Amino acid sequence: MFSFSLIIVTLLLGLLAVAYAWGIYKKMSAFEVGEERVVELSEIIHKGAMAFLKKEYTWLACFVGVVSILFLYRGVGSAYAFLLGAACSAGAGWLSMYVATQANGRTASAAKKDAGAALEMAFSGGSVVGMLVVGIGLVGIAVSYLFVSEATLAAFGMGASSIALFARVGGGIYTKAADVGADLVGKVEAGIPEDDPRNPAVIADNVGDNVGDVAGMSADLFESYVNSIVAAIAIGITSTDLYADGRALGFWGVAFPLLLAGWGVVSSIGGCLLISPRVLAGVPYLGAWIDWAFGRFEKLPFVRGVMDRIRGGDAAFALRMGLFAAGAKMIAGTFVLSMLLFITRGFHVFLAVTSGVVAGILIGFATEVFTSSDYRPVKDVAGSSDTGPATVILSGFSLGMKSTLVPVLLICLSTLASYSLAGMFGVACAAVGMLSITGIALSVDAYGPISDNAGGIAEMSQLPPEVRKITDKLDSIGNTTAAMGKGLAIGSAALTALALFVAYAQAARLQVIDIMNPKVVVGLLLGGVLPFVFCSLSIEAVGRAAQAMIEEVRRQFREIVGIMDGTGKPEYEKCVAISTAAALREMILPGVLALASPIVVGLLLGKEALGGLLGGTIVTGVVLALFMANSGGAWDNAKKYIEEGNFGGKGTSNHAAAVVGDTVGDPFKDTAGPSLNILIKLMTVVALVIAPMFS
Amino acid sequence: MFSFSLIIVTLLLGLLAVAYAWGIYKKMSAFEVGEERVVELSEIIHKGAMAFLKKEYTWLACFVGVVSILFLYRGVGSAYAFLLGAACSAGAGWLSMYVATQANGRTASAAKKDAGAALEMAFSGGSVVGMLVVGIGLVGIAVSYLFVSEATLAAFGMGASSIALFARVGGGIYTKAADVGADLVGKVEAGIPEDDPRNPAVIADNVGDNVGDVAGMSADLFESYVNSIVAAIAIGITSTDLYADGRALGFWGVAFPLLLAGWGVVSSIGGCLLISPRVLAGVPYLGAWIDWAFGRFEKLPFVRGVMDRIRGGDAAFALRMGLFAAGAKMIAGTFVLSMLLFITRGFHVFLAVTSGVVAGILIGFATEVFTSSDYRPVKDVAGSSDTGPATVILSGFSLGMKSTLVPVLLICLSTLASYSLAGMFGVACAAVGMLSITGIALSVDAYGPISDNAGGIAEMSQLPPEVRKITDKLDSIGNTTAAMGKGLAIGSAALTALALFVAYAQAARLQVIDIMNPKVVVGLLLGGVLPFVFCSLSIEAVGRAAQAMIEEVRRQFREIVGIMDGTGKPEYEKCVAISTAAALREMILPGVLALASPIVVGLLLGKEALGGLLGGTIVTGVVLALFMANSGGAWDNAKKYIEEGNFGGKGTSNHAAAVVGDTVGDPFKDTAGPSLNILIKLMTVVALVIAPMFS
Repeated sequence: MFSFSLIIVTLLLGLLAVAYAWGIYKKMSAFEVGEERVVELSEIIHKGAMAFLKKEYTWLACFVGVVSILFLYRGVGSAYAFLLGAACSAGAGWLSMYVATQANGRTASAAKKDAGAALEMAFSGGSVVGMLVVGIGLVGIAVSYLFVSEATLAAFGMGASSIALFARVGGGIYTKAADVGADLVGKVEAGIPEDDPRNPAVIADNVGDNVGDVAGMSADLFESYVNSIVAAIAIGITSTDLYADGRALGFWGVAFPLLLAGWGVVSSIGGCLLISPRVLAGVPYLGAWIDWAFGRFEKLPFVRGVMDRIRGGDAAFALRMGLFAAGAKMIAGTFVLSMLLFITRGFHVFLAVTSGVVAGILIGFATEVFTSSDYRPVKDVAGSSDTGPATVILSGFSLGMKSTLVPVLLICLSTLASYSLAGMFGVACAAVGMLSITGIALSVDAYGPISDNAGGIAEMSQLPPEVRKITDKLDSIGNTTAAMGKGLAIGSAALTALALFVAYAQAARLQVIDIMNPKVVVGLLLGGVLPFVFCSLSIEAVGRAAQAMIEEVRRQFREIVGIMDGTGKPEYEKCVAISTAAALREMILPGVLALASPIVVGLLLGKEALGGLLGGTIVTGVVLALFMANSGGAWDNAKKYIEEGNFGGKGTSNHAAAVVGDTVGDPFKDTAGPSLNILIKLMTVVALVIAPMFS
Repeated sequence: MFSFSLIIVTLLLGLLAVAYAWGIYKKMSAFEVGEERVVELSEIIHKGAMAFLKKEYTWLACFVGVVSILFLYRGVGSAYAFLLGAACSAGAGWLSMYVATQANGRTASAAKKDAGAALEMAFSGGSVVGMLVVGIGLVGIAVSYLFVSEATLAAFGMGASSIALFARVGGGIYTKAADVGADLVGKVEAGIPEDDPRNPAVIADNVGDNVGDVAGMSADLFESYVNSIVAAIAIGITSTDLYADGRALGFWGVAFPLLLAGWGVVSSIGGCLLISPRVLAGVPYLGAWIDWAFGRFEKLPFVRGVMDRIRGGDAAFALRMGLFAAGAKMIAGTFVLSMLLFITRGFHVFLAVTSGVVAGILIGFATEVFTSSDYRPVKDVAGSSDTGPATVILSGFSLGMKSTLVPVLLICLSTLASYSLAGMFGVACAAVGMLSITGIALSVDAYGPISDNAGGIAEMSQLPPEVRKITDKLDSIGNTTAAMGKGLAIGSAALTALALFVAYAQAARLQVIDIMNPKVVVGLLLGGVLPFVFCSLSIEAVGRAAQAMIEEVRRQFREIVGIMDGTGKPEYEKCVAISTAAALREMILPGVLALASPIVVGLLLGKEALGGLLGGTIVTGVVLALFMANSGGAWDNAKKYIEEGNFGGKGTSNHAAAVVGDTVGDPFKDTAGPSLNILIKLMTVVALVIAPMFS
């Protein structure tokens, strides 16, 4: 009875997110794009992106089919949960891409009006993506939970993880192959500008932004979101950490993470509304209510000041305030929830969750300091271009290595604090807390590639240069705020993986995982080397795919008559096909490595060694992911900083050196680095699923 | 009584190594260098190197003094052992540099005769270094052991480790600052050839080769060698793994590792003699005996074939056969020793040790495959220069990441095998086995920088170009065989650190180090991030020091009249002073980080968390060290491969791209990478020393 009500509440909160997304989407799609060329290009990108997903999902359907048959061994429930997890992840990815590729052209068109309109359109697209992901996540968990036990929910998480890994790796390869191919032959060899319609790889490049940054990022955060809840439930139901009399939390251990995530939906919607308050004016049913509520709220003087600045068009401020407001609302709600559910220990639980939320936000800040050109580190990397590409590489490299310290310290502090406050349940809830504002964090994140794409479309359909200027400005703001999203993705991956790891140990009935046991040491070492091998595979895959793209673009420039003066039409679809085929082919080996290694180690060396493997992978994976994301981000922004006219600006040897850094950083930050987030979660969730084999 | 005999035997075997080194040194120094200019240059380099060591040791003496006062808390024995360890390490480094800087000019001079004479001279220098290091190691352990208990021997190891870390980091910074400064301003900006006497940084560069590759490498292997023995003794004396009745090994657990190391001295001498059989002809006392023994041995047809090929001047074959012969002899001796000492379990122990020896050799091979231009991977890196520096960096990067897999697998296999055969004592003995042939491995290694220096001297004193050709050939052979030495350094660091880690856990009376304990997880994460931070610090230090060097060289080119036409003399000593000062200043922070972190974590988070810290550092440190060494080596050899005329050869854009890779790789392979070897050992030995505080 209790359980059933909980499921209904979860379902309703999930549906609230979906409804919000639906409302915004309706409003967004009502906007008519004026220019025919914009519509056409947007359509080509849309089709290319959907065609890629279709092929990817066809392949993944076979994979999911086979795995779910294997799951039948563990009962119909597991197979069902696994299938549902995979389907929800795929569905979230599909819808995200669908919406994002419709928002890009509209953003370009809206930018003809003014910056505010463009921000609203881009952010509308982003928030549909963000709210859909959390909505589908909550609905999926609720629907699974209707039919399976708490323990079997792990299969739901594994379904989400499997799709996420392939989406991240495949998307990362797709986008970078197209990017490198378009840049190297188009910009460097043929000397035509970025996003020039004469470049055969330009459509593939724009499709890639969606495939990598929208679908990949959505799948990544969907997975973190779902798995943090799954881990918290698995730990919560048996946790005896809270009460002195040794009672297990039982139902309340399940209810708390779900309600926390549900409250996150409400907080995220609040934050989104702050960013683009005009957005709801035309939405049927909801709009009037929220407008009324907002009107009352706005009477407060502080709120009025903030709102005025946002309405004045300060987009960076708006995005930041939206995130803060959501975070603050989240913390306030957590306080009420924990006091209600846990009474005497409520304050402890509240602090544990808050430690996760705060750590997530601070990791975002640390990421920003190391990757934004507003701060010293990126300026130093840009400055090192005085002595050529080698010093750019070295300085970016050491920046990335150094940047791992603060996030790891924050993760450690949050772990220690939440553990001492509420045991492993506290750690798991800290992860849920950190991820609860995924709705708005992903909205802010997804708005970036939409603006980027809008800029590409503006360029290709020869809209006035002011349009491009507006989208560029939006894109660059997005880059900065996206740092917070990236920090969240990595930080939450670490906490989620730790929680899943503990859930695994419990499920496998491990009393200890002793690193004095040589098998555990061997597991640790193997786990430590895996992320390196995984990165190597994905970087090489990008290299191979880019090579094929380079040759194709060169061929078209050579063979298609009149391509340069605009009389010959480039064969865009051939480049799209190359990226698609390469991404699908190259994602298999890393994917299999991630899925198979926990199983192989578990079977060959036993469950202790598997525990060691997970420990090693989490440690190296987290540090390496931080390093690669931050090095890559710093190189990217150092190049942009020089392009803004510093250290000589475009066309100088400084710029050339910075371009080398940026090219090296591309697969770091967009392929290998983010895939590691998923690797560590996927491996732990696989272990959690197979754990009953060992117990 | 037993113990005393054992100490005497150890002492004698150590003295045998010292005597051999002394004999070779006498012979070597009897060789008269004809050319005055060679003598002069050799003298300048010699003085520069010794001046650096003097300054470094002055600084370190204060540090050692302070630490040994702290040690007095733990008793006079610990302070004494610590002091002795530091003194032995410093002494070995000092003597190595002394000999190597005398062998360089003689090698240049001998190369005027023929390649065989040059090889003999260079290898003589190398083998004095190699045999001195193991000799001093054994003598040092024996002398410590006379006065302190087995447990207190750890302080001896810590003394050696502390000096080694500063020597490696300081030496690495010195050599790369000088190298980069000399290359960037001299070769690139001023367009004068390498090793041109007009370049003010040329002497600093040659001094750097000695400071980094001779003194640094000696200190590194001295430390591994000593600590593997220390760890094996600490574990052996209490080990109950071998006998069914639960007896501890006691005395035999101490005797076995010492005798193993002692037999390694004999095996190494045998291998060295194979490489340059003529070397002993003139040595008093010893020579005639060994010549006689050799004459009999050579009657065997297989041996005769090998000897003919070596006498024919095939230096690469000679070095390789020397290593193999030493390895074979080592394995044979191990068999006899283990059967004698452990009778029923002798064969198990034998196999455990052999697994270490074999793993060490195979890791060397794997290193060679990934870093020598004879194999596919380096050729691929060279080929990627077609698309510019960014792809060179990416391909070298992914090569390095991939290359970590095989060595880690070998370390894992050796660990599992030796553990299942003879418990943790087996793992510790595998490390001793791997390191027992340090004498010859270091000889082969140290011969490289001597040849390199000889080439520089030949160039600067305008000897005929054939001389330079011969030294270049020797140098390039040295690079290939050095791969084996590097593999050994990393593999043995891993096994030694594991053994020290177990010794720590025993000394701290830890029953388990459970990675389900959040404090241990936090330790693991902190341990995992440390090597990244450490690398970042040392790479940045190189950058800063190189910058200072670049400015000084530019200033001299600008201000000294007639420097370019040879009428003005460059101020070499200013560049030497810059490298010296930078190395000394920049080694402090990484050094303190390594020493302080185990103490801080131990005191703040407890002994379990300290165990986690060590585990995390070992895992990430080993993998990162392999990655950096192999990426760096591959870039270096890819550049050389292009310079040999492949992919366009010198002066093409391919070559320019490969130079970027090489520059990035320099601090990887010569500063950060090798320092990690020491980091992991130093941190574990510090933990071992402070362990009694926690028990």
